[in-house]
Amino acid sequence: MANWKNLDTLKSFEDLKTVKHVDLVSAMSGESGANRVKNYSVKMAAGLSYNYAAKEVDDDVLKALEALAKEAELSEKFEALYNGEVINTGEKRMVLHQLTRGQLGENVMADGVNKRDFYLNEQKRIAEFANKVHSGEIANAKGEKFTTVVQIGIGGSDLGPRAMYLALENWARRTGNFKMEAKFISNVDPDDASAVLNGIDVAHSIFILVSKSGTTLETLTNESFVIDALKKAGLDSSKHMIAVTSETSPLAKSDNYLEAFFMDDYIGGRYSSTSGVGGAVLSLAFGPDVFAQFLDGAAEEDKLAANKNIFENPAMLDAMIGVYERNILGYGSTAVLPYSQGLSRFPAHLQQLDMESNGKSVNRFGEPINYVTGPIIFGEPGTNGQHSFYQLLHQGTDIIPLQFIGFKNSQLQNDVNIQDSTSQQKLCANVAAQIVAFACGKKDENLNKNFKGGRPSSIIIGEELNPKSLGALLSHFENKVMFQGFVWNINSFDQEGVQLGKVLAKKVLAHETDGALAEYSKLLNI
Amino acid sequence: MANWKNLDTLKSFEDLKTVKHVDLVSAMSGESGANRVKNYSVKMAAGLSYNYAAKEVDDDVLKALEALAKEAELSEKFEALYNGEVINTGEKRMVLHQLTRGQLGENVMADGVNKRDFYLNEQKRIAEFANKVHSGEIANAKGEKFTTVVQIGIGGSDLGPRAMYLALENWARRTGNFKMEAKFISNVDPDDASAVLNGIDVAHSIFILVSKSGTTLETLTNESFVIDALKKAGLDSSKHMIAVTSETSPLAKSDNYLEAFFMDDYIGGRYSSTSGVGGAVLSLAFGPDVFAQFLDGAAEEDKLAANKNIFENPAMLDAMIGVYERNILGYGSTAVLPYSQGLSRFPAHLQQLDMESNGKSVNRFGEPINYVTGPIIFGEPGTNGQHSFYQLLHQGTDIIPLQFIGFKNSQLQNDVNIQDSTSQQKLCANVAAQIVAFACGKKDENLNKNFKGGRPSSIIIGEELNPKSLGALLSHFENKVMFQGFVWNINSFDQEGVQLGKVLAKKVLAHETDGALAEYSKLLNI
Repeated sequence: MANWKNLDTLKSFEDLKTVKHVDLVSAMSGESGANRVKNYSVKMAAGLSYNYAAKEVDDDVLKALEALAKEAELSEKFEALYNGEVINTGEKRMVLHQLTRGQLGENVMADGVNKRDFYLNEQKRIAEFANKVHSGEIANAKGEKFTTVVQIGIGGSDLGPRAMYLALENWARRTGNFKMEAKFISNVDPDDASAVLNGIDVAHSIFILVSKSGTTLETLTNESFVIDALKKAGLDSSKHMIAVTSETSPLAKSDNYLEAFFMDDYIGGRYSSTSGVGGAVLSLAFGPDVFAQFLDGAAEEDKLAANKNIFENPAMLDAMIGVYERNILGYGSTAVLPYSQGLSRFPAHLQQLDMESNGKSVNRFGEPINYVTGPIIFGEPGTNGQHSFYQLLHQGTDIIPLQFIGFKNSQLQNDVNIQDSTSQQKLCANVAAQIVAFACGKKDENLNKNFKGGRPSSIIIGEELNPKSLGALLSHFENKVMFQGFVWNINSFDQEGVQLGKVLAKKVLAHETDGALAEYSKLLNI
Repeated sequence: MANWKNLDTLKSFEDLKTVKHVDLVSAMSGESGANRVKNYSVKMAAGLSYNYAAKEVDDDVLKALEALAKEAELSEKFEALYNGEVINTGEKRMVLHQLTRGQLGENVMADGVNKRDFYLNEQKRIAEFANKVHSGEIANAKGEKFTTVVQIGIGGSDLGPRAMYLALENWARRTGNFKMEAKFISNVDPDDASAVLNGIDVAHSIFILVSKSGTTLETLTNESFVIDALKKAGLDSSKHMIAVTSETSPLAKSDNYLEAFFMDDYIGGRYSSTSGVGGAVLSLAFGPDVFAQFLDGAAEEDKLAANKNIFENPAMLDAMIGVYERNILGYGSTAVLPYSQGLSRFPAHLQQLDMESNGKSVNRFGEPINYVTGPIIFGEPGTNGQHSFYQLLHQGTDIIPLQFIGFKNSQLQNDVNIQDSTSQQKLCANVAAQIVAFACGKKDENLNKNFKGGRPSSIIIGEELNPKSLGALLSHFENKVMFQGFVWNINSFDQEGVQLGKVLAKKVLAHETDGALAEYSKLLNI
């Protein structure tokens, strides 16, 4: 059994505080800098690598972080998790999203079945369904093929699948794997559903209703919106809609859907991209084989996360460096900066993954803690960000650690050569330049043009953004967040902080308000 | 002449430090909370109002902020700015973006002309051009109407115009003002331009090349990309492209463009949405009248910013409360949370506007300063954010001030009634509920379900998101950022922090690197 202790009770955390800080400007200059770039690198799955040369660490800091990871028993805790221990203490649930893409340990039984078999079977059912849609065996009332798939879901049923779809759309178009266009409806703002419905051909669209509980207000509201639109078009909504839900939800056995696919309580929304939540829409959009490759990439990366040697475990190493930045160096946020247009919404997914998992102030036993936990996560693709908020990153008064992501090749592989370089080369040159500019800075007597440097970053580098590397990337961050939750001794798998707003919103709609809430309701005409 | 002094030399700043902090939970509870919501509100233009009831202020704090605004001479500095003083000290330029939509003070002469006349004339030229495109007088080589407009630009030439286009698209479709679809190409990543070009009918597309200097690497690269695509389609690119640039740029008199429209050095990229940079694309997409209404909203809000009474000047009040949160309460970031799908990219625009303007560590004279300046800005539309990062906002270890935006009516006005309320009512109920949940919290013996509250927010409320209210909203934040720059005694109108990366990227492409930069270049295959 692993020992669950608060970070500030660990001896190695006290030791870490005494390790000399790194002067990043000098460390990253000259020969020293070149050596760091060569040596401070870990292999990831699918040809990716995690390079932490430009982080504020050296061999002494790394040794102390290794000791902390050991004392915090990160490997033991991960092992307990994938072997089915009840890690989500708040909701008293196992945490099984890794089982949707592989199996790292023992068989996990729950609800009377082997859960790996259950997830595999759902994946198989989705694959068969998607193949039938693509072949036209499942078609609209006139026997015409569906051409568009629309996901109705919010939070984890939206951000992850949407980010993954956008990340693979261009790759799929180039490689002949593009089967159907996907759209997403999430916000309860009626303009969201209306605009999506106005922009598609509903007669040739298939809708996926995604809600684990089958009770999510936004999602059920948007379902009604869609049913309305289908009716107005003279269509039978039950022939245009499938559900992804849990077996115990009211949606599971409803006649309103062509078919229902299942997940369960052991997969949190923000960890559900590799379950049917991502599986249905991605299999319909790109085919089941592409989705299977995506799962393979994630499974390979999970294996690395199970490695007990932190220097061969990129997620654990990334997590520990993040803890060092947060709890020792005092940095409060991290910017995620993918130099890849396909990853345009990947930062928004990580924002949920990280902030909803680790934005907590009590430990896993419900006791208060005396140290900071999850940082703010934000970001936009480079080079766009360079012409936006990078000014503050370079010369602002706060230091913000940076997570770059870059690929050697573009997805569409359509390029122009201007001034002796392609656009892809310019893109890569920019990310390399930024890392060094942030780390080393540049002295100037005019302080307005002076760059202090000392701004830490890491980069994940890959050959190409494709299903396998995307799966590895996703798994890396899921496991990083999990390890950080272990270090902070918090429960990264519940989200009690979203409840109060729901309760009060219901009161507003029922006109059961007083005080400030009643006044705001008046101002907003409710 | 205004006195430009560092914040920490002002007596009223010292006084502010001694004012008792507000207990937001108790202030926002019961009758007190109701009274605050009623009283802590300022009228804005276009039917908007700024409500700061849920901010950590009371009459004592507000009085101290009023004194600080006076001692910092905010009104005098704004007056100097709009009367044409050289406020952008780093680049030795005037700051004239307000003149693109109105005139608050004296005539401003530069480059031998009255600048208000100059901007009005460019707006008129753009209007005439747009009308000719809409009527078909300006058409493609076959005499067919253009149906799509594509903006090629990055940073301020992209984020603002794109956010404004998305903010008005649905409104324009409902009100019959939708003329042409707009697309945007910004990133040097070749997948950005390729994907946009693959998704449009180039033969019926008109492109706007936007670069003030005419030398922006990304934009010129993407222009070549587009010219290539037009050539491949057998089209004459000079008949499909216009430029928005400065009169001194190499693009100004080139034969490569159907027409060129002008801005100048007195309009920073991030402040250029109301110049031709936003004007060309918005006039083509929605017609010149809609663009004129947008300018009217901004001009009306500018007038309020010139008000010397802080309690009738929403931008100044918002700015001072932000300074209080940043420099007294120590909060390092602000989340922008519009409850309006149309504002999906408005936070990304504010991210540039604020972080690029005020992410500075030296004062306007190039001297170091000893206090923090611009915060991190991030955000996503509600209710989506509620199912994502709100967990950390409610229960995380750091306090993050919030800026809500909400409208009583939707844009498309297509809605469904479910469980006795429309989607729009649900949307508004949620924002009201969130404000109170953040401010008041809720005690629970189970600390995992406990909400401490005390998390400050303000809300801007409007009737509907339309051209006029959007203009007012934009101006509000531009002026807020300006006032904060004045308080911090920094230059909010240059961006020297973006230069070093550009220099190093050029070295990488020329293979003139050593040390770490050479190693990163190898890793990225450049």
